[in-house]
Amino acid sequence: MRKVKVELGRRSYDIIIGRKILDKLPGYLKRLDVGRDAYVITNSLLMRKYGKRISSVLCGAGFGCRFKIVPDSEKSKSLKNAWQLIRDLAGFDREKKVFVVAFGGGVVGDLAGFVASVYKRGVPYVQIPTTLLAQVDSAIGGKTAVDLDAGKNLVGAFYQPRLVFSDIDFLKTLDKRQIVSGLAEVIKYAVIRDPSLFSFLEVRHKDIVAGRPDALKRIVGACSGIKAEIAGRDEKEMSGLRTILNFGHTLGHAIESACGYKGYNHGEAVALGMVAASDLSLKLGLIGEEPVSRIEKLIRLYGLPVKLKRLPINKILNAYYHDKKFIGKQNRLVLIRGIGRPVVMEGIALKLVKDAVARIS
Amino acid sequence: MRKVKVELGRRSYDIIIGRKILDKLPGYLKRLDVGRDAYVITNSLLMRKYGKRISSVLCGAGFGCRFKIVPDSEKSKSLKNAWQLIRDLAGFDREKKVFVVAFGGGVVGDLAGFVASVYKRGVPYVQIPTTLLAQVDSAIGGKTAVDLDAGKNLVGAFYQPRLVFSDIDFLKTLDKRQIVSGLAEVIKYAVIRDPSLFSFLEVRHKDIVAGRPDALKRIVGACSGIKAEIAGRDEKEMSGLRTILNFGHTLGHAIESACGYKGYNHGEAVALGMVAASDLSLKLGLIGEEPVSRIEKLIRLYGLPVKLKRLPINKILNAYYHDKKFIGKQNRLVLIRGIGRPVVMEGIALKLVKDAVARIS
Repeated sequence: MRKVKVELGRRSYDIIIGRKILDKLPGYLKRLDVGRDAYVITNSLLMRKYGKRISSVLCGAGFGCRFKIVPDSEKSKSLKNAWQLIRDLAGFDREKKVFVVAFGGGVVGDLAGFVASVYKRGVPYVQIPTTLLAQVDSAIGGKTAVDLDAGKNLVGAFYQPRLVFSDIDFLKTLDKRQIVSGLAEVIKYAVIRDPSLFSFLEVRHKDIVAGRPDALKRIVGACSGIKAEIAGRDEKEMSGLRTILNFGHTLGHAIESACGYKGYNHGEAVALGMVAASDLSLKLGLIGEEPVSRIEKLIRLYGLPVKLKRLPINKILNAYYHDKKFIGKQNRLVLIRGIGRPVVMEGIALKLVKDAVARIS
Repeated sequence: MRKVKVELGRRSYDIIIGRKILDKLPGYLKRLDVGRDAYVITNSLLMRKYGKRISSVLCGAGFGCRFKIVPDSEKSKSLKNAWQLIRDLAGFDREKKVFVVAFGGGVVGDLAGFVASVYKRGVPYVQIPTTLLAQVDSAIGGKTAVDLDAGKNLVGAFYQPRLVFSDIDFLKTLDKRQIVSGLAEVIKYAVIRDPSLFSFLEVRHKDIVAGRPDALKRIVGACSGIKAEIAGRDEKEMSGLRTILNFGHTLGHAIESACGYKGYNHGEAVALGMVAASDLSLKLGLIGEEPVSRIEKLIRLYGLPVKLKRLPINKILNAYYHDKKFIGKQNRLVLIRGIGRPVVMEGIALKLVKDAVARIS
């Protein structure tokens, strides 16, 4: 079992990473004094597989428990859904000792975190992430969100969990495409912050894709450490440090948006965004050819795309120019000077961005 | 013009208090760089009286402007209403430079603050309070909220405004009952923190009730100072200091709740709560008879109630025991050792609380 701390003064919290650690959850909850009644937000697959187990672990330790199932799709992250959950939570909260448990992937985590952040101006919540993407990224850092028709994640709060509890064995529920989608974020962490993780991803490729728990545990530990450090130093995206987490994401979001969030999942879009950003770094003379080809090779190795299928460049560029990361009249991209050496660049000429997109088309 | 600062590190902000100061608003907004497009939430009365003026002041200074009218009643503070405002705000927010203006009383301020707190994980907002209650209390301190069927203010956030802009001349829109309701909070501030304000309320009674701007300006200034100090030192009700602001409120809320939020408005219920809390302080030997009778006399002087009409004691006690300020099995009340000397007491015997309620029945 490994412990990583997110340092945020009075809002600090631990990330616990291990295997078959569910029995230890009640002890943590009690030491943290999060409350007495758990309001567990999850999806139907996890409920079928683990509902009884979690219920018996919590009840056995004297906690009250109510499960609330939300569909496992981005559509669940609506303000309407959040509203219904808040009203249901208020009905459950008879004894004023309620806390929220997000048991699932990114959708469940974002939604549950938002509900916890606004109910009674904030009740404690705990993340139990069950996907690779959630364990390495979305469950850490306190970004909660729901979507509007006008755009994704437009409503939310910065609101930190009291605990992130990552049991590697939950990753068994994932199919290969979900694992690989999470691995795009893992590659991102390696590129911006951890050359030794990058090598590990190259060398242990087979074990990772096969879902070997020791390999996944190494990955979740390394990425949790990076995310914890960055989120601790720049909680609310004020200092600019958190921006480096957007490597591959600005163009990735533009690709997702341009294809209407169909065709490419988040990880695949980020993979394409990383290839384009690496190429742009090369064009700007920030980096040589060797690391760029190493990155592209690693992305290919995991079966992630390096070329777009049938998506017009102009559509992507339009989406790019409407991205919220577009500051004033300046565009802003995270580029690299080497593996582990990110750099935030502003005011990049449109022609160069266009070329970089053309490179993946 | 007077300036009071709420000290909250990077989230510090000023309260500007003066007369006919609306022309100065754009200058403040520009210096604070709150954004370019103002989304002004207000009610229909204020829109009729000041809509054109505010619009011309803002547009004249180059700000974009959209007004959104909400009914001037507690019913406006629903999650449904907040949701509609958020969607409308997203539609207005074309250029990603939007900020929210709360132009109204407590209902508008709480609702607008909540909308600003969750849209894009927080956009800047500015309070322009137009009631005495909002100028001395609710516009300051960053408590935003909407109601659920299960209870008032159950959803919200601690989210600070960038500026509170209190123009005394807006108080002209108020009828006498609204002024007097606000004065109950003013008496509360005087009792817990400011003996000289207490004397001022005794001596200048006629000027205050007649709405003389110089007298009201003195009051708004003094109360803003107290609220700013307390909110600055205990932003999120963690240290317990903010608890003293609940003087008269715990029993006051129980009275409001027991009469279904009809019959007594907030100020009247707080006045009754203060009489009961003063009496309980006397019974516990914390304070002598002279200050208690001075408090009761001041409350009477402003035409606020000191006796309940037709409300069974048991109903109030039931509501009291369901109040959110009831911690675990301990009750908690703010009492006084003298004017300007509050004390938070826990574990007060039920019989004593009952007697105190009987005293105002």
